[in-house]
Amino acid sequence: MKSQHSSAGIDSQAGYTTAALADPLPSWNEGAAKASIINFVKTTTDAASPDYVPPEERIATFDNDGTLWSEQPYYFQFAFAIDQIKARASRHPEWQDNEPFKTMLSSDARAVLTGDQRGLVEVVAATHFGMTTDEFEAEVRKWLASARHPRTDRPYTDMVFQPMLEVLNYLRASDFRTFIVSGGGIEFMRTFAEQTYGIPHQQVIGSSGKLKFEIRDGKPILLKLAEINFIDDFAGKPVSIQHHIGRRPIAAFGNSDGDLQMLQWTTGGDGARFALLVRHTDAIREWQYDREADIGHLDQALDEAKARGWTVVDMKNDWRRVFPFE
Amino acid sequence: MKSQHSSAGIDSQAGYTTAALADPLPSWNEGAAKASIINFVKTTTDAASPDYVPPEERIATFDNDGTLWSEQPYYFQFAFAIDQIKARASRHPEWQDNEPFKTMLSSDARAVLTGDQRGLVEVVAATHFGMTTDEFEAEVRKWLASARHPRTDRPYTDMVFQPMLEVLNYLRASDFRTFIVSGGGIEFMRTFAEQTYGIPHQQVIGSSGKLKFEIRDGKPILLKLAEINFIDDFAGKPVSIQHHIGRRPIAAFGNSDGDLQMLQWTTGGDGARFALLVRHTDAIREWQYDREADIGHLDQALDEAKARGWTVVDMKNDWRRVFPFE
Repeated sequence: MKSQHSSAGIDSQAGYTTAALADPLPSWNEGAAKASIINFVKTTTDAASPDYVPPEERIATFDNDGTLWSEQPYYFQFAFAIDQIKARASRHPEWQDNEPFKTMLSSDARAVLTGDQRGLVEVVAATHFGMTTDEFEAEVRKWLASARHPRTDRPYTDMVFQPMLEVLNYLRASDFRTFIVSGGGIEFMRTFAEQTYGIPHQQVIGSSGKLKFEIRDGKPILLKLAEINFIDDFAGKPVSIQHHIGRRPIAAFGNSDGDLQMLQWTTGGDGARFALLVRHTDAIREWQYDREADIGHLDQALDEAKARGWTVVDMKNDWRRVFPFE
Repeated sequence: MKSQHSSAGIDSQAGYTTAALADPLPSWNEGAAKASIINFVKTTTDAASPDYVPPEERIATFDNDGTLWSEQPYYFQFAFAIDQIKARASRHPEWQDNEPFKTMLSSDARAVLTGDQRGLVEVVAATHFGMTTDEFEAEVRKWLASARHPRTDRPYTDMVFQPMLEVLNYLRASDFRTFIVSGGGIEFMRTFAEQTYGIPHQQVIGSSGKLKFEIRDGKPILLKLAEINFIDDFAGKPVSIQHHIGRRPIAAFGNSDGDLQMLQWTTGGDGARFALLVRHTDAIREWQYDREADIGHLDQALDEAKARGWTVVDMKNDWRRVFPFE
């Protein structure tokens, strides 16, 4: 029986595929990082190679924040939460005097993100739960259409990394399936991942709250409860990969210690394996941070990458272009 | 950007697609059930139709037990559990005197399935947990290769419904994505769903236990803990659909009251919707049961199907052939 493996749709990507033969990664400077990606794809897709991998096993997983788009001055989903709190503040006068809302309404909202974990949970509960899935999706879409990043004054979905878009396309043209595996909210990301990254909803994996099915006024709804279902970070990433994909990836892409276990799980299998870390080294075009950062903390994973020969992207030197709008 | 939507791989299904034009459902007798399926596919895939649905929204979900394969004299996964208990009994002499194991080792094992829920939980814990995901997969594969169904003496994976295989293929050839959404174990089903149904691991959704990521002897593993993660039945089905797929299906197929909420959720959306129940009416070729059955109980969903005009398949009269081996 014909299965649904051959999903990359190469037939309708003919134009892209032809271009890819020339240079599938035009926004990457020549160097070890670019060469490692191309070499991995070539050896795993060449039927004559000892490292050949059949298409159904070509699973590639990507972290989102800091790997596919920027995550500074704070996670973009946190910017959504700030704006939601501000928009609802007039209906909640008590927030002016109560933490964490008081801080969220100040110019120092970031302190909530890097401080007490309980504050963040309260903010998420107030902005992400207690509504239906359809209502939440509508809120996020409305926000994405109007919100602008504080530094670039551009829509958040413009702040994706052009070199990584090229990697996504290159892998799909090579009959890989591309998944997001992120600590971000699964329903938040699904509102834009399809259009922004070409990744359909069912290939987006993230943190989630519990849902409850109900019939309300004769119509079925899914209510977002104020209860954590799953935190998709650190050791949670291999777990969510198993639950959602059911297959160990052969390639994984991240940028922080929260991605370490995903990279360990990916490279722990037999045969050809690929792991990549995006290192934020470009203070001019993007941001520069790693071991000391509170957002996008990259320390232990960087040591392990060096010890094990994983690809570490030096954004400043490896990327000819960072954002599509440059 | 090209997305991963066009996954049905129609290009490589040319032979099948041509045959489909003649009759995509050759094992179905002519009648209202067959006509309703073909009519739904035609109206949702014809770009000139007011009910046209773009490919990315063509999501179809299928229950497994009793919908894609038989579920009598008990769920096939329960047969696996019985055989696992028997195989391990020599190492557990205490099971001879302790329930539910005593009953599992008797000729009346089925009583555990239809009796006290706690007994079943203990059996699942003893046979499905406390090992790595890789070890469990190997156990299931070994069992599937040797186990035989008590009535037909055939491998369990032979006891799939030929007419439903044709529906799966017909939908995929029409650029639908087909998912399993079953109360069965997600990791149990993934061992055979790809080969048996053409449904890849990431499109199999089911009940699951908690997993734990660990590094053991320098190798990363996922350990199956003796703790329920999710029960994918009744109101759990719309929830798992949202978590895994993130999109409301436009077509859903089931056979019991455990599928009712999935059919409600599916048909509760706008535009063309399709819901189908397989009714087991053929005591000769398969089994005959519905309202009084303890396995595959079909009562409330049958009433709702009649009230709302959902398709109800009369297996005896609608299916020319039941199993592929006939």
